[in-house]
Amino acid sequence: MDNFLEKLSNEQLKEVERQFSIYSQGAQEIIPAEELKNKIAKSIYHETPLKIKLGLDPSAPDVHIGHTVVLNKLRQFQENGHVIQLIIGDFTGKIGDPTGKSAVRKQLTDEEVKKNAQTYFEQFGKVLDMEKAELFYNSKWLSSLTLEDTIRLAGTITVARLLERNDFSNRLGSGKPISLHEFFYPLMQGYDSVELKSDIELGGTDQHFNLLMGRHLQEHYEKEKQVVMMMPLIEGLDGVEKMSKSKNNYIGVDDKPNDMFGKTMSIPDELIIKYFKLVTDLPYEEKDRLEEEYVNGSLHPKDAKILLGKTLVRMYHGEGAAESAEKHFKSVFQKGAMPDEIPTVNWEGEKLVPVIDLLVQLDLQKSKSEARRMIQNGGVKLNGEKVTDLKLDVSITNDLIVQVGKRRFVQLKTKSK
Amino acid sequence: MDNFLEKLSNEQLKEVERQFSIYSQGAQEIIPAEELKNKIAKSIYHETPLKIKLGLDPSAPDVHIGHTVVLNKLRQFQENGHVIQLIIGDFTGKIGDPTGKSAVRKQLTDEEVKKNAQTYFEQFGKVLDMEKAELFYNSKWLSSLTLEDTIRLAGTITVARLLERNDFSNRLGSGKPISLHEFFYPLMQGYDSVELKSDIELGGTDQHFNLLMGRHLQEHYEKEKQVVMMMPLIEGLDGVEKMSKSKNNYIGVDDKPNDMFGKTMSIPDELIIKYFKLVTDLPYEEKDRLEEEYVNGSLHPKDAKILLGKTLVRMYHGEGAAESAEKHFKSVFQKGAMPDEIPTVNWEGEKLVPVIDLLVQLDLQKSKSEARRMIQNGGVKLNGEKVTDLKLDVSITNDLIVQVGKRRFVQLKTKSK
Repeated sequence: MDNFLEKLSNEQLKEVERQFSIYSQGAQEIIPAEELKNKIAKSIYHETPLKIKLGLDPSAPDVHIGHTVVLNKLRQFQENGHVIQLIIGDFTGKIGDPTGKSAVRKQLTDEEVKKNAQTYFEQFGKVLDMEKAELFYNSKWLSSLTLEDTIRLAGTITVARLLERNDFSNRLGSGKPISLHEFFYPLMQGYDSVELKSDIELGGTDQHFNLLMGRHLQEHYEKEKQVVMMMPLIEGLDGVEKMSKSKNNYIGVDDKPNDMFGKTMSIPDELIIKYFKLVTDLPYEEKDRLEEEYVNGSLHPKDAKILLGKTLVRMYHGEGAAESAEKHFKSVFQKGAMPDEIPTVNWEGEKLVPVIDLLVQLDLQKSKSEARRMIQNGGVKLNGEKVTDLKLDVSITNDLIVQVGKRRFVQLKTKSK
Repeated sequence: MDNFLEKLSNEQLKEVERQFSIYSQGAQEIIPAEELKNKIAKSIYHETPLKIKLGLDPSAPDVHIGHTVVLNKLRQFQENGHVIQLIIGDFTGKIGDPTGKSAVRKQLTDEEVKKNAQTYFEQFGKVLDMEKAELFYNSKWLSSLTLEDTIRLAGTITVARLLERNDFSNRLGSGKPISLHEFFYPLMQGYDSVELKSDIELGGTDQHFNLLMGRHLQEHYEKEKQVVMMMPLIEGLDGVEKMSKSKNNYIGVDDKPNDMFGKTMSIPDELIIKYFKLVTDLPYEEKDRLEEEYVNGSLHPKDAKILLGKTLVRMYHGEGAAESAEKHFKSVFQKGAMPDEIPTVNWEGEKLVPVIDLLVQLDLQKSKSEARRMIQNGGVKLNGEKVTDLKLDVSITNDLIVQVGKRRFVQLKTKSK
């Protein structure tokens, strides 16, 4: 790649620096940063937008705000006129797991893939301008690769290099089987970059290996190498694990305003500033100001969370919804009143259940010992009445409302209604 | 697979035992031997020949008597009415080495593959009835495999299992690169057995891993599993290394009668009986008798070698050639006379060369120290004159004859003739 920085005027170089400073804000790692500057320079010199790639797993379409760390970064590229390439990895999705051993990688039908993609796009539309994004299904090129093509692809990489990937080396070391076909997933993902001539690929820091594979393969296939940008992963509501649907510690972009607000109020204080920085659309100056006020104590954690909650609800549901979510939360939080909407559960179990078991079975408490403590602290109510007897057998009736703590409610529906 | 042994008459069972005893003679390992009996029984019960597979590397068509260990075994199957499947691995040959690093695995053109195959078949014709053999090029099915097919193929095997192959584990252990595509060679070779529904695959003991892969894949693709028969490898003329063209320690089936005979006379005594057993067409009873006589001393090693040499020349060139080769050898060996035909070398080096360097450059000696010893022992002659001066500078002239030991001659041709 030529050095385009040398070809630009001072005015144009200022524009390079302006864009570079926006893109690098919040990024955990840019490989290599100098090349990113040169790519921006190239796009200015040739008056051609850069191609920014994001690969998507077709099997898990529920978008949560953990994903928006990357989406917000993509939006910044869009705002500066660059083109987003969204790639649905439908090829691997359609293959599933050929060993048949993994329930996670089950084979998807064409229809499921399309439906999942549709869900993605609707949810992405809340952050990105989907009119301007390019959409691709990688089966388009991968399904036409022959064995000869595949052998050439495999010839670009060594077994030792693949075994450097943490999960592979751990599994080999601990005697857990790695099926040979799994080695192809990073290769196929990387090959997408070859096919689409991507300039930049975005992903979370957990995608380090796969993202660099795209750069590696482009070099082998004599394309211009992509720059790799890794965004930090955010912890979920528990403050410990990476936000994910399977850990049930997430705020979905499709969550209802009151849920979104309530969940935000439940995050640990340590996450407040990180969330502000990575998942809100506030201007950077404001984020910096909030951080300063938070650190010097002039912004109280509770007020900061309310602002964060309102910001998130405003982003996904608008200004009005943000105001009512706050009001709703305060009414529940401050008066202990019941919320307007209570999630329901179809109860198919026994009709007489020990209260501790009930709380665990409804996922309102993680363990029996936690449930016991919660009852002892007076945090459990049935139809509004505090439970005091640890050994209470609860008689399940239709519409029974179970409340844990100040804000968690479940309403039971019995089958034989 | 059904138990066909149960379905046969006593007469038929005797035929099973007869064939089994022939096939198992000289075989190093049969996996599993019981299944081989059942396969024979199946062929008798259904009056259908078995399919006996042999895979061939298209890049090394020079057939030497090391190969005939397996070919002789194949002939026994042919003699009992079974069908030989010869598979030219042209698919891998056409791909070559995608990393471009291996000179050995260079890419072959269609023409080269065909020419090499032709050479194989002509040479095989000296042992097998090629009219009755089935010939296949594996590109026929491998070139139509898609990436999806390949992923399924790769899904049948774990990385750990592949790393069990000695050369892979050694290379990984010592930090030498294994390119990922190399993992596919055993898989492709094994897939040939799936495609051709082979009943039995033959190979040398060094093919252990690859042969069992065919059995493994047939099981995965729900075919009847092949029996694997491994034949011993024979050491070459040096008595140490496996016979191979690259080691230049081989007797080629195309070697001229005198070379064939002379090379046979040069093998170490320890190999005489092994060669008799594995590469001659003598009846088993005679082989046993020869071994007995050799062991009890009534057959002298020199006479045994002459008989072996004559047998090999008779097999590949006929009775008359065997007699003259013996006579020719005796005249050279006993009188130190020069042979009728001397190989020539076009000399393009310096015109004045230290004698020790000359011997090494002409490949007549492996190292300078060996050359020095040979001269000290009086084993080197130039145009018939013994060399005594270790530091002699040889003036290269056209037609100069260099002789090492009793039977190695080279005649130099200078360019500016």
